[in-house]
Amino acid sequence: MKFFSDNAATVHPRVWAAMAAADAPDHGYDGDALSRRLDAAFFDLFGQPATALWVATGTAANCLALAAMVPPWGGVVCHREAHIETDEGGAPGFYTHGAKLILAEGDAAKLTPDTITAAIAPIRDDVHRVQPHAISITQATEYGRVYTPDEVTAIGALAQARDLWLHMDGARFANAVAHLGCHPAAITVDAGVDALSFGMVKNGGMGAEAIVLFGEARETAMVDSIHRMRKRAGHLQSKGRYLAAQILALLDGDLWLENARAANQAAAELAAAAGERLIHPVESDEVFLVVDPAEAAALRAAGFDFYDWNPPAGAPGAVRLVTAWNSNPDHVAALARAIAAL
Amino acid sequence: MKFFSDNAATVHPRVWAAMAAADAPDHGYDGDALSRRLDAAFFDLFGQPATALWVATGTAANCLALAAMVPPWGGVVCHREAHIETDEGGAPGFYTHGAKLILAEGDAAKLTPDTITAAIAPIRDDVHRVQPHAISITQATEYGRVYTPDEVTAIGALAQARDLWLHMDGARFANAVAHLGCHPAAITVDAGVDALSFGMVKNGGMGAEAIVLFGEARETAMVDSIHRMRKRAGHLQSKGRYLAAQILALLDGDLWLENARAANQAAAELAAAAGERLIHPVESDEVFLVVDPAEAAALRAAGFDFYDWNPPAGAPGAVRLVTAWNSNPDHVAALARAIAAL
Amino acid sequence: MKFFSDNAATVHPRVWAAMAAADAPDHGYDGDALSRRLDAAFFDLFGQPATALWVATGTAANCLALAAMVPPWGGVVCHREAHIETDEGGAPGFYTHGAKLILAEGDAAKLTPDTITAAIAPIRDDVHRVQPHAISITQATEYGRVYTPDEVTAIGALAQARDLWLHMDGARFANAVAHLGCHPAAITVDAGVDALSFGMVKNGGMGAEAIVLFGEARETAMVDSIHRMRKRAGHLQSKGRYLAAQILALLDGDLWLENARAANQAAAELAAAAGERLIHPVESDEVFLVVDPAEAAALRAAGFDFYDWNPPAGAPGAVRLVTAWNSNPDHVAALARAIAAL
Amino acid sequence: MKFFSDNAATVHPRVWAAMAAADAPDHGYDGDALSRRLDAAFFDLFGQPATALWVATGTAANCLALAAMVPPWGGVVCHREAHIETDEGGAPGFYTHGAKLILAEGDAAKLTPDTITAAIAPIRDDVHRVQPHAISITQATEYGRVYTPDEVTAIGALAQARDLWLHMDGARFANAVAHLGCHPAAITVDAGVDALSFGMVKNGGMGAEAIVLFGEARETAMVDSIHRMRKRAGHLQSKGRYLAAQILALLDGDLWLENARAANQAAAELAAAAGERLIHPVESDEVFLVVDPAEAAALRAAGFDFYDWNPPAGAPGAVRLVTAWNSNPDHVAALARAIAAL
Repeated sequence: MKFFSDNAATVHPRVWAAMAAADAPDHGYDGDALSRRLDAAFFDLFGQPATALWVATGTAANCLALAAMVPPWGGVVCHREAHIETDEGGAPGFYTHGAKLILAEGDAAKLTPDTITAAIAPIRDDVHRVQPHAISITQATEYGRVYTPDEVTAIGALAQARDLWLHMDGARFANAVAHLGCHPAAITVDAGVDALSFGMVKNGGMGAEAIVLFGEARETAMVDSIHRMRKRAGHLQSKGRYLAAQILALLDGDLWLENARAANQAAAELAAAAGERLIHPVESDEVFLVVDPAEAAALRAAGFDFYDWNPPAGAPGAVRLVTAWNSNPDHVAALARAIAAL
Repeated sequence: MKFFSDNAATVHPRVWAAMAAADAPDHGYDGDALSRRLDAAFFDLFGQPATALWVATGTAANCLALAAMVPPWGGVVCHREAHIETDEGGAPGFYTHGAKLILAEGDAAKLTPDTITAAIAPIRDDVHRVQPHAISITQATEYGRVYTPDEVTAIGALAQARDLWLHMDGARFANAVAHLGCHPAAITVDAGVDALSFGMVKNGGMGAEAIVLFGEARETAMVDSIHRMRKRAGHLQSKGRYLAAQILALLDGDLWLENARAANQAAAELAAAAGERLIHPVESDEVFLVVDPAEAAALRAAGFDFYDWNPPAGAPGAVRLVTAWNSNPDHVAALARAIAAL
Repeated sequence: MKFFSDNAATVHPRVWAAMAAADAPDHGYDGDALSRRLDAAFFDLFGQPATALWVATGTAANCLALAAMVPPWGGVVCHREAHIETDEGGAPGFYTHGAKLILAEGDAAKLTPDTITAAIAPIRDDVHRVQPHAISITQATEYGRVYTPDEVTAIGALAQARDLWLHMDGARFANAVAHLGCHPAAITVDAGVDALSFGMVKNGGMGAEAIVLFGEARETAMVDSIHRMRKRAGHLQSKGRYLAAQILALLDGDLWLENARAANQAAAELAAAAGERLIHPVESDEVFLVVDPAEAAALRAAGFDFYDWNPPAGAPGAVRLVTAWNSNPDHVAALARAIAAL
Repeated sequence: MKFFSDNAATVHPRVWAAMAAADAPDHGYDGDALSRRLDAAFFDLFGQPATALWVATGTAANCLALAAMVPPWGGVVCHREAHIETDEGGAPGFYTHGAKLILAEGDAAKLTPDTITAAIAPIRDDVHRVQPHAISITQATEYGRVYTPDEVTAIGALAQARDLWLHMDGARFANAVAHLGCHPAAITVDAGVDALSFGMVKNGGMGAEAIVLFGEARETAMVDSIHRMRKRAGHLQSKGRYLAAQILALLDGDLWLENARAANQAAAELAAAAGERLIHPVESDEVFLVVDPAEAAALRAAGFDFYDWNPPAGAPGAVRLVTAWNSNPDHVAALARAIAAL
């Protein structure tokens, strides 16, 4: 009974079916019929013109977007616990040719206009200081917290006022939308987001994520440069139709939202059982609990697999539980009972 | 009837089956059981210890290997028509942080010890000159020509004498082995090749290639650095088991060789029909023909699709025909007839 | 009466004389007789074998040393207020091809084994996390504080235990030695420092700093790579003899120490006058004072020039005063009186 | 009697005097009064608005200009024997983050519209091919040949038609102007050159070159980016006034032209003596001669120092003689006699 990561989940049958349907000769790279449908599919979803590219991983999606937004001598404001800062093996430094991540604070890895301003206001505008060119926020955050439309809009307004691009790392974008029950545009294009890494792999896909550019971003040289950088990074797969098929399958009939709702629901069930142990409110598919080592061992002895996590100050220990689109309801119920019984 | 590229071919049924069989939860990234079998599978194939990593594309495979071999201030000797020089959108410059490709000559994009020496002998060893650190050869070459074991061995000896690493871009490695009928080790590890980009995508795979390190290369810090660079380039897919499955399926029962033989056989059939029109001897799955524009138009009017190519000096025009593991025998026969009838 | 920066001071007459004496034809780059004497001159100074290179700026010295120590996918631990983090326009990211600066804490910009450990202990050793490869400390720090031999030795021991290189940004190295009254080896080669940026420009030079490698660092490929990187960065000046001359002049007869003592003495005089206003103990040529805006205006009205600084929490304002090797004693005395009279 | 390189020459007395005159406190970096005069001084010289920056070396000047003109995924057309390709230790790859040098042909290292077109016309405009963004020509070339105003204008027209920037490596710009007797604008801003590396070090300077931007280049973000890149490369010297002083001294009263005329005159004297031995017409301060090894040894035995050079096909050997602003007339006459007597 695995609660390690949504990354480990299997591929949704409708994604498999779409990949199989793509198994006919077509133009290589992104010249095939499916890849050429991506822009329209995201336009339909967001209700605004969009330019979309597939890539294999969230790291590539994030870093290509950032590299298109910031020159090598510039900086990107992000939370000091953002995935791009802590878990991508230095990929932003590689893709941006050494641009700086300017670290900001915020509860549960959420930035606010105030914390962003605190990070950038002291940066004197001269050549000795790296200037910010973009802000990157994670939706849902690394602790499963969700930015509301108002919160994103406030950051978008700050970005606009400071002439900064706004990127959203949406590895769990679907979970955030499912939680909020809002239109996906309300936390992206309508809120000032210029580029979105729309996560698919954690949500029923196999190896395809989408970079989606909106508004001004898609009307600039950024579109050309991001295509060239994708090739230059070895991410322009020659059989791109199999990636496009995955993305289109997840968009079709809002399968992406259905999958995310299922994962969120499983996490909510665990959260309900956890009560006071919860470290963060559960708003997506991640559940962080205070659990001491003996309790963690007991859960593992009962057949539940999960990762330990850095506990909050003073807590005896903590764990992270992650559900997925296909979490087994019996396993979830069993884990909920086991937690409640600790 | 498409003869554009082996890239456009479909995925082999046994590859599909292996991917489907991998569709169960396992550890993420390359911690799964299939990924962990790669080293052993390539040891079996080559008869020598090997360290293998999957990546999605040949460009990434080539460039990660080169980046592990050459410092940013160094150079890699390659043919001036090598894929890494002409068709990878500057990826080697990206991955190596600006190392130089030192261009050498040779018929049909084949290097020889003499042409390599001609390129590097004049490079004075001081800090003003970029020093060579590696040689990269393509097997089969960009014109479908194959290095014999003796030819690779001679280059390997030069590499060793000059203290250079030797990389093989094996996008069509399978076709070369099928043509030569030799043991795969005879043109790689036994011939002095340190790193091989073992192509799978053109040969029945979907989106997985293997980087294979041999001998000294796999006993050095190169192994650690190439793993870290793969992550840093966003090429460490979280559901890596689907990539490992593709590679293992193609190795299993020598499916890779069977597929390549089929493609080579189809190309040989076209070559036999082409007679004097052949620009290069056909040794893999590519056929380059002198065809004037009117003839090309006639072939296209008859339903055959292919790319024009730069003609040799004095020729009225040229085309490239590429077969694949699943070239339809009727289509191949029809095209052979059409060529013969020109 | 300028107390802006030691950067603004003039060039020492003996440095001028040495440059004039170098004004004869000799080999270009660093093949001249003076450049070839650098290693021996630093061996004499430190009492240990040393490899030394001139470069024009402290930024280049720091970043070349770091780039020789850390791969692009690695990290360097430094204080979050270190000059390399805050004031070099992203140069470390450029030279290291995107390596990460791993930020640590400490009073007055001083690292300790504890704060370094706090920064690196949580870094799990896998490819998702950027691993530390080096530590960089500033002597004297950005707030003019000095590491004692014991303090450097403790950090050196940590570096050795963790297999990290240790770099010292010695833009004000001379001031630190002058303050400590110790042998220069006691805070460098004997304490575990592998590479030192030995500052000359703030201390009577014109445009030459020295990178000095010790011990293991100078016995490795690092020496070759740092020479090649210097050329590749456009820092191998063709008339290098004028840079070598500056360095040798400052080393000759311990002029570097004499100059630093003069600057420190002037700063001490200001510190003595400042009493409770001092933000940091004065150990080099920098004096940080709590001064409210009206007081600062009064000092400026009296003819004293200096920079405002970020005040400590709760303070009404702060300024930085910097002395130099040639601070005018009358100006210093006048400023001391003016501060005392505030 | 040294004819190694103009790099080895001493510093002109008026440059020394200007540096000494700058030896007073002023603002650091390029905030001093002299640095702030550079734009106006070059406006005066070229008769068109100019933006100028000092850097220490020609390599840095060339590479900063190129890095401002070409994205990492782009390319720069240059001659295959251009200094940036052969002698800068890979610096263009470093500064541009891996952009490609697209090599073109031409006699005596001179490009023409035809050879440039031959290099770039075959580059299909898709993401697999590195696209040209700039052209770089060397004036005078690596063989001392000079582009006439008409020749530069023709290349400038091609650059404009193809939407490419045009850079001029003017390490020996002064020698070219002296040879042509034209207005300096006639081979730069009026001919379509966007950025000039104006060499000073080979012509009486110590360690300062100027990057000069004209026209559209200076009205774009390039000006901001080149300033930031200079800092990021560690080339923003804190005592910049000593560099500005050198440049202003050489511009003052056209000392740069006077020095170049002297060097050219000395080279012409050698050329006149060389007769049939000349490999290239002598148009600047470099003289390339066919000399067999025994003859070279005889010249050296007579006290003349110079470098061997790669001989033309079939020639028994070759040497390069370089004069300078201060070539000793007696030495020149003696060498001319010795050559004539061979």
